[in-house]
Amino acid sequence: MLEVTSINCGIVIDHINCGNGQKIFEKLNLGNVDFPVVLLMNVPSKKLGKKDIIKIENKIDLNLDMLGLIDSDITINIIENGNISKKMNVDIPKKVSGLFKCENPRCISNSDIYATPTFTLVNKNKNKIKYQCNYCDDFTYFNQR
Amino acid sequence: MLEVTSINCGIVIDHINCGNGQKIFEKLNLGNVDFPVVLLMNVPSKKLGKKDIIKIENKIDLNLDMLGLIDSDITINIIENGNISKKMNVDIPKKVSGLFKCENPRCISNSDIYATPTFTLVNKNKNKIKYQCNYCDDFTYFNQR
Repeated sequence: MLEVTSINCGIVIDHINCGNGQKIFEKLNLGNVDFPVVLLMNVPSKKLGKKDIIKIENKIDLNLDMLGLIDSDITINIIENGNISKKMNVDIPKKVSGLFKCENPRCISNSDIYATPTFTLVNKNKNKIKYQCNYCDDFTYFNQR
Repeated sequence: MLEVTSINCGIVIDHINCGNGQKIFEKLNLGNVDFPVVLLMNVPSKKLGKKDIIKIENKIDLNLDMLGLIDSDITINIIENGNISKKMNVDIPKKVSGLFKCENPRCISNSDIYATPTFTLVNKNKNKIKYQCNYCDDFTYFNQR
């Protein structure tokens, strides 16, 4: 069985639903860093059956809105001196700005570079998360599973 | 320090030059499998200083030409019952077919779907691998580092 030993100082993103690990890995741009990182996919989990895990042997800034948007089931562990110094959960963000585009091709936010696409959460069902655009009122959808 | 314990049955691709791990991960389409896989990046290595490793808890077909083209320094370990049953190295392939496009935009292999792009190795310097197209004689280059 594939396991990774604990890290000394850094971040562990745990309980990632299978398939979302690679998305988070890419969004955090971990393919272009020079410190040790590990992406584990489809490893056994008591809670989820199978899960993905990301281990980062460094402190980096995390955009919790972005993480909550991709997978709100994740647990973030901050590791210091080999121990968990902080445990965090994330939520599907109620307000989102600049993280995704409006699905309405005629929305002003898709053509005006000064109009940062901004949305308000309408429905937080993880299979069909629904955001309303603050500019055109159209809906944009996400699926976390 | 980040380490991954040994796997029981599968494949370990070791001694990958940093940065090539993600390329191999993508070429092997490991983001879309349902068995456990691990991508380790920038982990300490006696031989290379730092290296990437891929561990796959399953037997899958490997295209050795493709692997040799991306990184000819890698070692492939086939694991059975927790032990290495076979160790393989790869070479920069002398003949390559269907793995990349010809850099000459006017080459017939870029427009005729029946003309599989096929190349012969001319220079195997890892910083500037040079292939000659079998159709148009133009050169296409690769850099493994």
